[in-house]
Amino acid sequence: MNLIILLAQDYITDNLVKLSDERFLQIKNIHQSTIGDNVKVGQLNGLIGQAIITYIDDKQVELRVLLNQPPPKKLPLTLVLALPRPKMIRRIFRSVTELGIERLIIINSYKVEKSFWKSPALDTENIEKYLIAGLQQAKDTVIPPVSFARLFKPFVEDQLSNIIAGKRAFIAHPGTAIACPTNITENAVLAVGPEGGFSQYEVEKFNEIGFESIHLGPRILRVENAITALSSKLYQF
Amino acid sequence: MNLIILLAQDYITDNLVKLSDERFLQIKNIHQSTIGDNVKVGQLNGLIGQAIITYIDDKQVELRVLLNQPPPKKLPLTLVLALPRPKMIRRIFRSVTELGIERLIIINSYKVEKSFWKSPALDTENIEKYLIAGLQQAKDTVIPPVSFARLFKPFVEDQLSNIIAGKRAFIAHPGTAIACPTNITENAVLAVGPEGGFSQYEVEKFNEIGFESIHLGPRILRVENAITALSSKLYQF
Repeated sequence: MNLIILLAQDYITDNLVKLSDERFLQIKNIHQSTIGDNVKVGQLNGLIGQAIITYIDDKQVELRVLLNQPPPKKLPLTLVLALPRPKMIRRIFRSVTELGIERLIIINSYKVEKSFWKSPALDTENIEKYLIAGLQQAKDTVIPPVSFARLFKPFVEDQLSNIIAGKRAFIAHPGTAIACPTNITENAVLAVGPEGGFSQYEVEKFNEIGFESIHLGPRILRVENAITALSSKLYQF
Repeated sequence: MNLIILLAQDYITDNLVKLSDERFLQIKNIHQSTIGDNVKVGQLNGLIGQAIITYIDDKQVELRVLLNQPPPKKLPLTLVLALPRPKMIRRIFRSVTELGIERLIIINSYKVEKSFWKSPALDTENIEKYLIAGLQQAKDTVIPPVSFARLFKPFVEDQLSNIIAGKRAFIAHPGTAIACPTNITENAVLAVGPEGGFSQYEVEKFNEIGFESIHLGPRILRVENAITALSSKLYQF
């Protein structure tokens, strides 16, 4: 936790917050901070800045907050991702936020098991928790919008063409001829399949509306590593 | 598991292997393969190729093996990594292998807790398991050598200069002026600190023997993501 994210309900006055949850424990036990110490904080979807500890005991901390800097820029990248296995959702959502990916669209795919869609990891409050964990790691404050498309064909045919308009569009597809480009400057949309990849039919659907197939070399990376590798190649950080 | 790694003790004749462990379960339950089907296999530290299922029941599978292709090339990269938290060791060692990093050197650092060195995750057989998991994901066969340096100063002063001779040498250090270079072609050594980073003294020690400090932008990535991001930027896959 490199930045403590503050929520509207944490405020007891205009510039004073009281924390007693895991953020308090982070300040007390991990940072081992005490009265007068500075803590790096950020307002959810707002500015970042400093807070000074004005009171701390065994149950809570009070902080006087001064927010004065913008959060880091996002990568101008929309990730279209086949729903991951439930046990990977937390880590992948956190990583997506940590990397600064601007928008996440979770889609269905032939190799996604139907049961994955019922995972409690997809509950709104869990998703928000994973995204905020990514923000607190990366010193960002802005929650990326996450949307879901459970019907592959209508999503790709009816919505995705509009989403990629004016942007570059890539689909990660092992064995294709073109390597992932590096240090592009345009906005882009990147499609990443499930473990085992998109089906041939799905790849063709993406290609039909203008997605370029790109590869990451002969190694098959796990989805979470592929997302990090592709984002890192596509954009200068 | 995109490739089944075969060990010397799996062979019952020159070209016939019998498997009954989790590799058998992978073939039987995940791939749902049956007699006559092909399985992608590789000999540990050797060639990759195909195997045909000649027998399968509820407890074991027999495969006739034909190995005829070299494994994918490694990245010409040595990673010098501060010992991660025990719960991260498995995932990081697996990722290092998956990415094709040629050699891993685990070192001590000011922010590494002493207790981490006693983790069972560092037992030789566990390390081998994590590395083989990475090979099976990335369709590689060659285990990267892993060594340990528990004394920071003598390692950096007495050994690391020799290790970086003739190579480029980088240390990941947030807030420095130079961004991680992209698509280099030379051999390189990359130093990555613990969560919380190397101490200023440690960074200076690296710099003194010729390491260039590089950054990954304003976001602080978790160690595992930083390794993937840096490797992906440094080398074309």
